[in-house]
Amino acid sequence: MAMQDRAARTRRELIRCAAAAFEQHGFARTTLNDVCRRAGVSSGALHFHFDNKEALADAVEAEASAALHRAGEMARVRPSGALQALVDASHSLAAVLREDSVVRAGFRLSYDTTRTNGLPLSERWHSCVRTLLAAARDEGALAGGVPMRDAAVAVTGVTVGLAVLSHRDRRWAGQTSLTGFWRLMLPQLACPKAGVRPTPVHTASAAPSRAGGGAE
Amino acid sequence: MAMQDRAARTRRELIRCAAAAFEQHGFARTTLNDVCRRAGVSSGALHFHFDNKEALADAVEAEASAALHRAGEMARVRPSGALQALVDASHSLAAVLREDSVVRAGFRLSYDTTRTNGLPLSERWHSCVRTLLAAARDEGALAGGVPMRDAAVAVTGVTVGLAVLSHRDRRWAGQTSLTGFWRLMLPQLACPKAGVRPTPVHTASAAPSRAGGGAE
Repeated sequence: MAMQDRAARTRRELIRCAAAAFEQHGFARTTLNDVCRRAGVSSGALHFHFDNKEALADAVEAEASAALHRAGEMARVRPSGALQALVDASHSLAAVLREDSVVRAGFRLSYDTTRTNGLPLSERWHSCVRTLLAAARDEGALAGGVPMRDAAVAVTGVTVGLAVLSHRDRRWAGQTSLTGFWRLMLPQLACPKAGVRPTPVHTASAAPSRAGGGAE
Repeated sequence: MAMQDRAARTRRELIRCAAAAFEQHGFARTTLNDVCRRAGVSSGALHFHFDNKEALADAVEAEASAALHRAGEMARVRPSGALQALVDASHSLAAVLREDSVVRAGFRLSYDTTRTNGLPLSERWHSCVRTLLAAARDEGALAGGVPMRDAAVAVTGVTVGLAVLSHRDRRWAGQTSLTGFWRLMLPQLACPKAGVRPTPVHTASAAPSRAGGGAE
């Protein structure tokens, strides 16, 4: 294996192990020694890649940010309309939070009160939700009189809430939870005269996977 | 002032200061010295009331638990039906989270990953939501075919999500956010033939206050 490949693999492994430590102990109580031990690398090897714990947390959050971006992008290219794209984006986000421990840790870090400079991932998700709702309105797919702000707050609130609730009990992050929310919410949002009726289930074939992923 | 009163006042002040420290630094990074300094009491005085940091966190969480209980109880005695009681209970909970820093810190502690023995406050809220929905169904106030599980998950998810989102930006916890959710959700839940139509706003006159409260 070329040296570059080996360095890239070590870096990925350090991110994966830092994510696992943050998940288990929270940011404040995680030590670099713990991350080294989990990854089976020396302290020198860790410092070759990351200056400090904050830099490791930044890298974990960046993975979550990229996953959020992919969920939004995947949704944007759907031919079945913006409202279905929003349903699919929420399912994609929930799926990647269920399946990828690094992305999950990254989201958790973004609202860890012991970090002050975390990425505003929830705000980005809120912005993605607003964009897709505006696109749905422009397509004539939203029912008349739907308050855009209310809809964006409800969708963002419930997706963030289910993610937080799943920390204690994974069932909250299951596909049925989000499908249940959409089953109740879609009839309020969708214009009854629109051609294609959105469905509350995920119509995308697969959740977006991380480039070069493989964590958990 | 009698000695007992003074002791009770010191205890309340220690809880209030511990809550402020947990809010600012998280559980793991809060030190007992910091709490003593904020409360203006000696380490000996703190240890007279609390054995350790975990005991302080337990006391803060107990305040949040009591507030949750009061929100549920207040809702239970409403004459305007169980569905309106659920709307009101969610608004009461949001109001007390906005207005009482100890209750807010208690809820945050309950999903702080650096504590393992926190109270399952979200699960208790979910149970309260399910109870009120079942009562609404028994009153004939729920629309036919509303999946009870979906409704409970949506209501619990959105209330927890808005509380978490408000950590970074207080506007998420505002009354308009929750009213917006109910404006969209109530037409799906409420039986159109039921006598009294529930409204998405808080019909209770005031949020439940803490017994002997006054924090923030």
